[in-house]
Amino acid sequence: MVVKTAHEMAKEHRAISISEFFEKNRHLLGYDNKIKALLTIIKEAVDNALDATEEARVLPDIYVKIEELEKEKYKIVIRDNGPGIVKKQVANIFGKLLYGSKFHKLRQSRGQQGIGISGCVLYSQLTSGQPTQILTSTGDGKTHKYRIKIDVKHNEPMIEESQVIKTDKWHGVQVTFVAEGLYREHKQSVIEYLKQVAISNPYANIVFDSPTGKVEFSRGVQVLPKEPDEIKPHLYGVEIGILTRMLHDTKARTIQTFLTSEFSRIGSLTAKKICEDAKIDPRTSPRKLTEEDVKNISYAVKETKLTKPPTDCLSPLGNELIKNGLKKELNPEWVDAISRPPTVYRGWPFQIEVGIAYGGSVAEPSFMRFANKVPLLYQAGDCAITKSITKIDWRRYGLQGSKFPEAPVVIFVHLCSVWVPFTSESKESIASYPVIIKEIKLGLQDCARKLSLYLSGVRKAQMIAEKKRIFERYAGETAVALEELTGSPSKQIEENILKMVEKRWGEINGEEDTEEQRGEGQDRSQANTEHNG
Amino acid sequence: MVVKTAHEMAKEHRAISISEFFEKNRHLLGYDNKIKALLTIIKEAVDNALDATEEARVLPDIYVKIEELEKEKYKIVIRDNGPGIVKKQVANIFGKLLYGSKFHKLRQSRGQQGIGISGCVLYSQLTSGQPTQILTSTGDGKTHKYRIKIDVKHNEPMIEESQVIKTDKWHGVQVTFVAEGLYREHKQSVIEYLKQVAISNPYANIVFDSPTGKVEFSRGVQVLPKEPDEIKPHLYGVEIGILTRMLHDTKARTIQTFLTSEFSRIGSLTAKKICEDAKIDPRTSPRKLTEEDVKNISYAVKETKLTKPPTDCLSPLGNELIKNGLKKELNPEWVDAISRPPTVYRGWPFQIEVGIAYGGSVAEPSFMRFANKVPLLYQAGDCAITKSITKIDWRRYGLQGSKFPEAPVVIFVHLCSVWVPFTSESKESIASYPVIIKEIKLGLQDCARKLSLYLSGVRKAQMIAEKKRIFERYAGETAVALEELTGSPSKQIEENILKMVEKRWGEINGEEDTEEQRGEGQDRSQANTEHNG
Repeated sequence: MVVKTAHEMAKEHRAISISEFFEKNRHLLGYDNKIKALLTIIKEAVDNALDATEEARVLPDIYVKIEELEKEKYKIVIRDNGPGIVKKQVANIFGKLLYGSKFHKLRQSRGQQGIGISGCVLYSQLTSGQPTQILTSTGDGKTHKYRIKIDVKHNEPMIEESQVIKTDKWHGVQVTFVAEGLYREHKQSVIEYLKQVAISNPYANIVFDSPTGKVEFSRGVQVLPKEPDEIKPHLYGVEIGILTRMLHDTKARTIQTFLTSEFSRIGSLTAKKICEDAKIDPRTSPRKLTEEDVKNISYAVKETKLTKPPTDCLSPLGNELIKNGLKKELNPEWVDAISRPPTVYRGWPFQIEVGIAYGGSVAEPSFMRFANKVPLLYQAGDCAITKSITKIDWRRYGLQGSKFPEAPVVIFVHLCSVWVPFTSESKESIASYPVIIKEIKLGLQDCARKLSLYLSGVRKAQMIAEKKRIFERYAGETAVALEELTGSPSKQIEENILKMVEKRWGEINGEEDTEEQRGEGQDRSQANTEHNG
Repeated sequence: MVVKTAHEMAKEHRAISISEFFEKNRHLLGYDNKIKALLTIIKEAVDNALDATEEARVLPDIYVKIEELEKEKYKIVIRDNGPGIVKKQVANIFGKLLYGSKFHKLRQSRGQQGIGISGCVLYSQLTSGQPTQILTSTGDGKTHKYRIKIDVKHNEPMIEESQVIKTDKWHGVQVTFVAEGLYREHKQSVIEYLKQVAISNPYANIVFDSPTGKVEFSRGVQVLPKEPDEIKPHLYGVEIGILTRMLHDTKARTIQTFLTSEFSRIGSLTAKKICEDAKIDPRTSPRKLTEEDVKNISYAVKETKLTKPPTDCLSPLGNELIKNGLKKELNPEWVDAISRPPTVYRGWPFQIEVGIAYGGSVAEPSFMRFANKVPLLYQAGDCAITKSITKIDWRRYGLQGSKFPEAPVVIFVHLCSVWVPFTSESKESIASYPVIIKEIKLGLQDCARKLSLYLSGVRKAQMIAEKKRIFERYAGETAVALEELTGSPSKQIEENILKMVEKRWGEINGEEDTEEQRGEGQDRSQANTEHNG
């Protein structure tokens, strides 16, 4: 038994590098098991490829290859046609965790943490001992080749090989990992992931060279979604600690200019009012403020009505792209999409988009979750999107099932934001902020209503056709009976009946009747009241 | 629209400090909302206090205070009687994320990541702008006072005040935070947390000075659980990447000594065999190995049968402590506990302990999850413990309810390990490794069987008393009827009947019959068959 004194314990303290931390906690980055590991590597690399091409306004051409080298050991290649990476950045981007261009920017992008791709390098060397190979060119005829590992103890890149190769003018990045894994093709697999990427990025062309053969997800449209702009932080989302730091770092000479220049949508009037409420002269130098002053400012902000932040930092897909994606990959009988207006949580703009594909090649119910155009395949249970879907009573929209629709329908939900509140570093599910759930529900209801109109139209047409059949079937007998009563010839009567039937229900088709059918579903009682009305 | 070239993008890349990362992602550390924030701060500080006192073999005296300063702003104080912290370590321990003594050690402790307490400092300064105050003494009559903040951009401590105060010979640590929060007393609150701490640490005395009054959780036993020893890693848990690093860092001159000296339970015979299978001379110098050699070693290891790691790195509570904890805090009618033998996952030893408290002051069913003696209050849904509980058919043990028991019963499950596989940094739920779930199930079944024996005993006693009452009630009438038939005097007959009843069921009580009653429950059919048998 070792009894320790404070001095003995002191000897044992030391710093832990972020690489050591995630090497030991790799499940936090999405490496819980061998199947998921392959998916995570593809996911991070494809995210980066799409971010880079989109930022350079290039229509993405992405090539993905998974090759089994030996039992549970794979070679994974991802190549893009993006702008490439300049020489001096390559090592840090791939060889250092918590390094990137997206963390400090308020602009929608797939990556946001700076631990995705370097996490892949970390996992590869951990499980295979192999470095990661990077080929990249910015289109100047020179291709830089690197073989990189991470010095885990110091979270620094180790360059095992670096050379320049003369090439013709391609530009882009090609990464090759060797890692432990297991290739399967089920619901949460690489192939399903790429299919969903093709749906949420219909302007991308993706070729997947899999162990079981080649698949191509062809580009469906020739236009990129709008480029998101970068915005400044919004005062509602800035806590006192960050405010203190910004006050210390700012170049602004006065509080007033600090407020108007460092935050979005703060005019000089608002700035003056905040200073007034905080009992501070707006001309005071930011560095001169006391802790008390800063506290008063943050209180004043809470009391002030501020304009919402600008939403041009977002890059939603829009109805057309969503419909195109769902059509080209699912070939449904009916499809529609809804883009909600942008809104805000904790000072961060976000926007919800919903799409529904029904029937056709869609055989069974399923739902697809997306964050900043990235499919989310795991941890569905904790996700705000799942929770919103289960809050809808799908029967009201002509679909069976209460919590989840039991019909041949695919539900597509996309959240885009400058900062997606993921529940873990592996970015698999979205935290359940009430305002986010509310927005998703509204989107789902909107879109489901459209579907129910279509369905009710279809169903009414079926109902009418059925009535018509019945009348036609009994026209003969009825005619005979009437002949006995009236004496007029049954042949004639039958013809009249058939004419009437034709006249009453002949040209009617579901479409033009749908209006009066609003909200009709399999919930009969409701449907009936609306027939009578 | 900004079109970016690789060179423009390069300018935007920079390193992200771990403090910046968790400041933005503070929900990952357990600061999702104001109520939970208070709990998280208490949790991290109390964990450290218990780890320190236990390591110094001191019976813990812990004082916790929560005081509301203004709306949603609290002062939180935690004081212990541990060994204290030496001067030069204070700043790093509180002012630097990923710094600590437990991450690199294979030994059971509450803390394991080095981001708990510094995370509290980070959250406090973020939400209140205030530094954290630390008072500590190692018992040399000097108390060191610090006021510390974190330089978020560099993840380094900023010492705002530091002085030495002459004091009498106390030793320990007192931390004072000022942070945003919300104090409530519901199921997942601070008070429930401390109650569960008192159950899983019955040798600790805890005083809680809450906004609603003072509560004391008194020490129930005067002994500490055994001190865990530190062990070396086990080869089964070591991936090729880590093996490579160890080979590079080792002081061992040959592979054979490397294997026997750096890993637990590897004798020279096993070491030789591994080298042989890997086709390497055991006398080769570790630094001389090629990538190929390392790969062959790791394959050879997979093929070799290794002895399990030693389990003295664990510090289980044991049946007595568990029962004591449950008794003193819950005052149940019946209580028992089971400590499973230690076992191993991914080369890491772990052990499951289960306790059940029934009836008495226990009014409704509930279950308590613990990891290394720390109560887990959130994310129960994802937790291996919850999953195991729902896998039990509680009716088989005389309790209603299939997934969860519907009876006045508290179920206590404790996992202790050198490395608990938490699903997030906030350490709220345990990853569902099959071997862990299996062990928990076995423990639960064992303990539940004991409860069912007790219950069936009780129930049989009740049944018999009931029969007895009935016979006694009708003895009179029966006697009269028999008198008519037989002529003998009813008085006499009645006496005889009562004698018979007394003789047959008089002294019987549930206890001594329980054996033949094994497994009886409210599942009647089963119970009956066992009566008849």
